[in-house]
Amino acid sequence: MSEKIVAGIDIGGTNTKYGLVDEYGKILTRGSLHTPDYADAFDFAKTISDIILKETEKLPGTDLHGFGVGSPNGNYFTGTIEFAPNLPWKGVVPLAKHFREASGLPVSITNDAKAAAMGEMIFGGARNIRHFFFITLGTGLGSGIVCDGKIVYGHDGFAGEMGHMIVKAGSNRLCGCGRHGCLETYASATGIRKSYMKFLAEKDQRAPIDPEQIDSAFIYNQAKKGDAAALRAFDYTGEILGLALANAVTLFSPEVIFLFGGLARAGDLIFNPTIKSFDENILKIYKGKVRIIPSSLNEGDAAILGAASLVWHDLKNVAK
Amino acid sequence: MSEKIVAGIDIGGTNTKYGLVDEYGKILTRGSLHTPDYADAFDFAKTISDIILKETEKLPGTDLHGFGVGSPNGNYFTGTIEFAPNLPWKGVVPLAKHFREASGLPVSITNDAKAAAMGEMIFGGARNIRHFFFITLGTGLGSGIVCDGKIVYGHDGFAGEMGHMIVKAGSNRLCGCGRHGCLETYASATGIRKSYMKFLAEKDQRAPIDPEQIDSAFIYNQAKKGDAAALRAFDYTGEILGLALANAVTLFSPEVIFLFGGLARAGDLIFNPTIKSFDENILKIYKGKVRIIPSSLNEGDAAILGAASLVWHDLKNVAK
Repeated sequence: MSEKIVAGIDIGGTNTKYGLVDEYGKILTRGSLHTPDYADAFDFAKTISDIILKETEKLPGTDLHGFGVGSPNGNYFTGTIEFAPNLPWKGVVPLAKHFREASGLPVSITNDAKAAAMGEMIFGGARNIRHFFFITLGTGLGSGIVCDGKIVYGHDGFAGEMGHMIVKAGSNRLCGCGRHGCLETYASATGIRKSYMKFLAEKDQRAPIDPEQIDSAFIYNQAKKGDAAALRAFDYTGEILGLALANAVTLFSPEVIFLFGGLARAGDLIFNPTIKSFDENILKIYKGKVRIIPSSLNEGDAAILGAASLVWHDLKNVAK
Repeated sequence: MSEKIVAGIDIGGTNTKYGLVDEYGKILTRGSLHTPDYADAFDFAKTISDIILKETEKLPGTDLHGFGVGSPNGNYFTGTIEFAPNLPWKGVVPLAKHFREASGLPVSITNDAKAAAMGEMIFGGARNIRHFFFITLGTGLGSGIVCDGKIVYGHDGFAGEMGHMIVKAGSNRLCGCGRHGCLETYASATGIRKSYMKFLAEKDQRAPIDPEQIDSAFIYNQAKKGDAAALRAFDYTGEILGLALANAVTLFSPEVIFLFGGLARAGDLIFNPTIKSFDENILKIYKGKVRIIPSSLNEGDAAILGAASLVWHDLKNVAK
């Protein structure tokens, strides 16, 4: 009997990564290409499909069962990518259809954070957990919400935008969405940079390096050295994130909240103030019931595994 | 063939109402008893069961299929009522078990807002809607969240406490839960009273009647007469409710938000500012997709219908 494998494709504004993934979450082969080189979406899908099909042939005894795609603004229901500002294709792009035509195989698409949440459920720390949040603290804040073992898509596929909860009404922090005070203007790499600059300014402190060079890694290193503004930026970020998570928990009552992405790698610096604020703000009936822990997915693999897990989820559900 | 009917029981701190309900949501018979008269929970369940069984006998050709119970702090998963401050039974009460033993029939329990949401889905305006919020604006703010046709219970049965999202960090409004700034300290009969008193005080205006007598009905009448503080209290309530709903929508992406309860009966006075704030605060991808409308359930029947619909939901799902 041949071994089932699936393709996981993670589309980013700069690079698209792909891999072939077995049912245990092992990435058998991987590669990437430069997304902006493909002005035509069908051409893009055809190129990747051809590579994947060729790579599959090099793995004797395997049988490719489908393509899972994680993409900014990917819509699971329609199989389209809709108005993604950082991708070369404008408007609504029927990318699942393109991949299906190019490969002749089943294709599932969703957005990157939902794909990663699925990866956590199929291959990571959420294998036996039916109610959890998966939060990506990257440039923005992405979220995949799992309720009773299913990703929450909402009626149009666009549920789960926790980064766009307005956490400070009247805030002057402009979000990429055009509004002000969204959670991701505070709890993200971009957000913590804003907080750090604010705390520096409040103390009339000059930035220790060219402000253009300041990113969350720099703030992390400053905090490790004991810099007060950097430490305060982490505390403030955690304070706001902890309250927002406590609010979201009152709606879903999950068991676990996984934090993932660059900012989550700061460890105690971000987890401690987040958990402290969460505990202070959580409704009593949930107290002590919700764990806030790091994602168990390896950062380099998460996107491909997440995309692949879309297909694995369907295959395993069908097999049941 | 006999006609299937079910019992709906709505437990309140003062009165417990019950009724026999047919599959079209018609209440065939109804009654009530005084909850505090029953210090013993089994005695309570036995008394109601006996009445219901007797009432069923008076309806020839009907066949009673189960008991649905809506109660403060009712837990669907465990069939218990847990630490309900306004009920005579302390701690964790196995009320579903008591009803089952007393009646020999299947029993489902949930909290009152979730039961009413189920009523809206089975008998009301949500019959063809798979993603919606049902918000009760009563003394507090209750909510039932329906995602893909299912009530959101969370891992422990306690999801859907929208009234306890903290909407104003640092607020001095004390909530019944012991924290400050919860949505229900603003958007509820209690909340609008606080806002009205605040706006009166800000204008150095004396309360037009004994402050003890001021309730949401009085504020409604004042607003209808053009009283500035009362009008502002409605606007302020809607402003805060609209933002909170916009935030909750980013997580669930529902199609409809039903408002129910005393405050919802104020009509345009509460709907207009709520919808205005919602539209101003909603993330662009949801704009124009979410309707905020009154519940179609009759206020006097909603609780019994909601409780009964717990059983109807199971019966109809099994029948599918």
